[in-house]
Amino acid sequence: MEKMFKDETLNEITEAESLYATIEELYPICRSITGDGVRETLQILQQHIPLEIHELPTGTEVFDWTIPKEWNIKEAWIKNSNGEKLVDFRWSNLHVLNYSIPVDKVVGLKELKEHLYTLPDQPDLIPHKTSYYKEQWGFCLTHNQFMDLDEDNYHVFIDSTLKEGSMTHGELLIEGTTADEVLISTHICHPSLCNDNLSGISVAAHLAQYLLKKKELRYSYRFIFIPATIGSIAWLAQNEEKVDRIKHGLVLSCLGDRGDQMTYKKSRQGNAPIDKMVEQMLADSGQAYEIRDFIPYGYDERQFCSPAFDLPVGLLMRTPFGEFPEYHTSADNLDFVDADALAKSLSALKQIIYGIEYNRSYQNVNPKGEPNLGKRGLYKLTGGKTDVEISQMAILWVLNLSDGKHSLLDIARRANMPFQAIKQAADALEQANLLNRSA
Amino acid sequence: MEKMFKDETLNEITEAESLYATIEELYPICRSITGDGVRETLQILQQHIPLEIHELPTGTEVFDWTIPKEWNIKEAWIKNSNGEKLVDFRWSNLHVLNYSIPVDKVVGLKELKEHLYTLPDQPDLIPHKTSYYKEQWGFCLTHNQFMDLDEDNYHVFIDSTLKEGSMTHGELLIEGTTADEVLISTHICHPSLCNDNLSGISVAAHLAQYLLKKKELRYSYRFIFIPATIGSIAWLAQNEEKVDRIKHGLVLSCLGDRGDQMTYKKSRQGNAPIDKMVEQMLADSGQAYEIRDFIPYGYDERQFCSPAFDLPVGLLMRTPFGEFPEYHTSADNLDFVDADALAKSLSALKQIIYGIEYNRSYQNVNPKGEPNLGKRGLYKLTGGKTDVEISQMAILWVLNLSDGKHSLLDIARRANMPFQAIKQAADALEQANLLNRSA
Amino acid sequence: MEKMFKDETLNEITEAESLYATIEELYPICRSITGDGVRETLQILQQHIPLEIHELPTGTEVFDWTIPKEWNIKEAWIKNSNGEKLVDFRWSNLHVLNYSIPVDKVVGLKELKEHLYTLPDQPDLIPHKTSYYKEQWGFCLTHNQFMDLDEDNYHVFIDSTLKEGSMTHGELLIEGTTADEVLISTHICHPSLCNDNLSGISVAAHLAQYLLKKKELRYSYRFIFIPATIGSIAWLAQNEEKVDRIKHGLVLSCLGDRGDQMTYKKSRQGNAPIDKMVEQMLADSGQAYEIRDFIPYGYDERQFCSPAFDLPVGLLMRTPFGEFPEYHTSADNLDFVDADALAKSLSALKQIIYGIEYNRSYQNVNPKGEPNLGKRGLYKLTGGKTDVEISQMAILWVLNLSDGKHSLLDIARRANMPFQAIKQAADALEQANLLNRSA
Repeated sequence: MEKMFKDETLNEITEAESLYATIEELYPICRSITGDGVRETLQILQQHIPLEIHELPTGTEVFDWTIPKEWNIKEAWIKNSNGEKLVDFRWSNLHVLNYSIPVDKVVGLKELKEHLYTLPDQPDLIPHKTSYYKEQWGFCLTHNQFMDLDEDNYHVFIDSTLKEGSMTHGELLIEGTTADEVLISTHICHPSLCNDNLSGISVAAHLAQYLLKKKELRYSYRFIFIPATIGSIAWLAQNEEKVDRIKHGLVLSCLGDRGDQMTYKKSRQGNAPIDKMVEQMLADSGQAYEIRDFIPYGYDERQFCSPAFDLPVGLLMRTPFGEFPEYHTSADNLDFVDADALAKSLSALKQIIYGIEYNRSYQNVNPKGEPNLGKRGLYKLTGGKTDVEISQMAILWVLNLSDGKHSLLDIARRANMPFQAIKQAADALEQANLLNRSA
Repeated sequence: MEKMFKDETLNEITEAESLYATIEELYPICRSITGDGVRETLQILQQHIPLEIHELPTGTEVFDWTIPKEWNIKEAWIKNSNGEKLVDFRWSNLHVLNYSIPVDKVVGLKELKEHLYTLPDQPDLIPHKTSYYKEQWGFCLTHNQFMDLDEDNYHVFIDSTLKEGSMTHGELLIEGTTADEVLISTHICHPSLCNDNLSGISVAAHLAQYLLKKKELRYSYRFIFIPATIGSIAWLAQNEEKVDRIKHGLVLSCLGDRGDQMTYKKSRQGNAPIDKMVEQMLADSGQAYEIRDFIPYGYDERQFCSPAFDLPVGLLMRTPFGEFPEYHTSADNLDFVDADALAKSLSALKQIIYGIEYNRSYQNVNPKGEPNLGKRGLYKLTGGKTDVEISQMAILWVLNLSDGKHSLLDIARRANMPFQAIKQAADALEQANLLNRSA
Repeated sequence: MEKMFKDETLNEITEAESLYATIEELYPICRSITGDGVRETLQILQQHIPLEIHELPTGTEVFDWTIPKEWNIKEAWIKNSNGEKLVDFRWSNLHVLNYSIPVDKVVGLKELKEHLYTLPDQPDLIPHKTSYYKEQWGFCLTHNQFMDLDEDNYHVFIDSTLKEGSMTHGELLIEGTTADEVLISTHICHPSLCNDNLSGISVAAHLAQYLLKKKELRYSYRFIFIPATIGSIAWLAQNEEKVDRIKHGLVLSCLGDRGDQMTYKKSRQGNAPIDKMVEQMLADSGQAYEIRDFIPYGYDERQFCSPAFDLPVGLLMRTPFGEFPEYHTSADNLDFVDADALAKSLSALKQIIYGIEYNRSYQNVNPKGEPNLGKRGLYKLTGGKTDVEISQMAILWVLNLSDGKHSLLDIARRANMPFQAIKQAADALEQANLLNRSA
């Protein structure tokens, strides 16, 4: 555990190494939408960020849905008639159909095959399969193994439980100076799969740690670590009165692969401030990136962007889910994710937060003509005290568009300049009493 | 007459053959903006669809215009001094300047030439020329014939009448469950010219026949068969109080040529529902198509789109008028139009009507998060009853955008999916009580 | 002086020659933001247009600024220890740092160099440098001369004054039939530099002369000849109550170079009528042109477009300031500007004024259907009196869009036709009593 989070005092490991170490530590745990794997995952995160762990009992109605029975598993295997284990949950928790009911019987090849899942096009890989809402048992294995199965009597054994219990999620509110919230949501329901979504969990936890150290935040930041779909639906149902506070939001997923660009899927609104800000900050970063329009398929942004909520919540990824061949297979493992990629993703997120925190509208105090910048040392050709970091064009843009109707982001977009340059110009102008903050 | 319309019971001829047969039957008749040729044309159509024939007397004021005298013609020819006929109305009714006053005299070559119309660039073709609003006599002939004319005494004879009478048009209202109307307008004033506009007449008549067989139509469909310009102006003047009922409209013309694409000219509004629907349905059809912006030159959409009416009426064609060399010449004949092209045009129209009929807005009954599709057999991975024809993405789009503000057409456009796929998803969701129709 | 302005009676010189002659006459004068050079310049212009000369005393507060001391200069030179003049204000008034304080002393090479300005990348040219708001002395010279300076005692002498006085500007209001104003602004603060901005001064003066001869103008035209920045700020401060009258405005600058296109920088509004009109008229002219978005850097449009005013004022140039290598150097001389280029710029301006004067909205008197053009001789195929200059399409467009919501400019843009063709169609329709002017 010591190596999990970067200790900035001792500086023993880099942030990139720490991001990767979190994934390494959480990788072996078998998670699902409910059960002890989720609890263990959240307890490990609690050692570093003050997560609250919430339990919602089986049977609770959440909008059109019902919290399902809780699933736990201890052991699972298939043996042939010689007693040889062909697959074992201990080798990979992907071997069991996630949410499989218990079974303990001997079956012939034909019946066995009805319960087996493989990937014929990727014959070396074990698929990740689930059956949350239909009670059945099953195993996943490589297609090569499947092809080797002969006529035989197979002993199938799954020591799982599916019964009344609860669904677990973790939540952390980092309070800022206003009640306006930024929502960071990431799903915790996948077993040993790294990019989808230990990468999202690790990046979210490190972002929380980073924000916890900030002395003064303008926004309050709400982190939720939830099972996909049922988790966000339940959270919305339980927190309906808080939803209006959410001014910006991001779902985090697939943030550790070596794909050479960031991908942002816009909110349903399409031109929400978060949509414009992410595009601005990715462009400013110099990293490659792609912006995609909202579609109602994906992760929990589907729920946050459902028509009654229509929240300004987008999805941040590197390579989008389903577009890397390792997706939902045993190849989405510790080799597939990369410390530097994780660090780049976290860095992009921090830049987006920087933009969210500092984006405001100002009123030019001298809106009639330009103010005399020279006498305040803000004009390049006359003053001697001008901070060379402050762009003269940025100063002119901020003055010209600070009519209360343009935010710094709007100004950056119209000026086609980096947000940070515009922000620094606004800081200098505010310090010179040339700008007032809009209400 | 038996072969004119497709008899679906006996199925003796295809719809394509029937569309062509209508043109064949109407081709020999000499039509103009008034007169017995129009009446005969409408009476033939009456044998298949219950057209009402309306007469408006000469001299009636219609907005800035006046219904002209009625024109009829029996015979017309030019003979040389040997008594040989050089042109004869019986050979082609294009030989007479349409609306020519009567004449019976002998003239020299010089005077004759002042009354002759030819196409020097298409020397084998007879032009179609009219003189509705200036009283004069004249003949049209091929330029080759014209070049052969020698100094001689020519006997010119036109047995026509131009006198008080009436202007005739045909009208059919197919009543739907609402008083909201779809207007289908086509011009009937051209003599023996096939694409312009027996094609429009035939397609409109077949569309009417198709709709008459429908048990329940949402819209009322008003078909008007009118002379161009004066006909639509007169119709608007006589029906001013009905104009507000028109929610969508199409002018039909040039629908039988072998041009490889459909052309739609948008209404003056430019983004009326009909404009978006035609584009969507042409795109969905897989046929090539072109969308053009409104210009105030063309057919009767000019009048429907005049500023005081500004109706949502576009113009549907294959190759646009004036852009095929046969336009307004004797080459726009029975060889120029094609049964399959007519059938394709009618098919496109039916698709557009399908879109108009089924386009509505819905309210998602469970707008907070997604509804649980699995328990209703609407989720691909869990249910066993899912109709494979229903696209999962279409279901998600319809749910996500059914907030009362998006029609199915809006959803299809945003989802970039066929209208029909969206409509089928909406049907399935409505059946599952997940959607309500918006008021 | 006789040759300065074109005399249309005698027609002794062309307008192009006259435009150039004005520049030739004003070139030798040493101008700055204040002082006798400006007064002399304006007095010369007064001989041809009835300019009012205004003086604003040193120390007057104008918004955030204060009118500076007045600067005048008689003589300035550097001599080496042999008494040889190395630079002399008489050779080029660029040799003195504009607004230099007086000096008369002997300095060593090291101290001298602290007061010298050169262009190392353009070693043959003298730069134009100013120090309006910091009191210092200095000289400008070619970099070649600078490199030749040896260790020596140099006598530096500047016989200038910087003391209480006033800032001068010229103003001319040509009254039209309405109080709505078109503002034409050009800066007069540059010494012997031709394109920037004797070209703007000459073109503005000739435009004023042209408009003074017009019998009836719809708009009132206000010409202001002002020092850059402080001049426009002062004018706005002194005329704040008049600002609302300005419906359109242009800043004129750099209008005499041989660059092959006109450049228009849009107002801050971006889609003001002046922005659309300039684009339309430049397109119609057949000349090459470029339209640029507003940026808050440039000439006096910065002040007119400051947020509290946000006036519809753009900037018209040939090659933009800073984009020709001669900019702000001794190479921006009489050879650099061209009589034909000046004439083309003036011609473009006259076209823009034409558009501004004649752009209106009309109401179609017969908005229900098209009016009967034939009976009024306005339909090509029937009437005999149609003026062939009038485009039939233009007539149809004007009728179709004259609903009081579209100006002629809007119609020209939608029809993609020249403004003049649309205007001529409107004239013909108005004469035929088919259009009324909108209020």
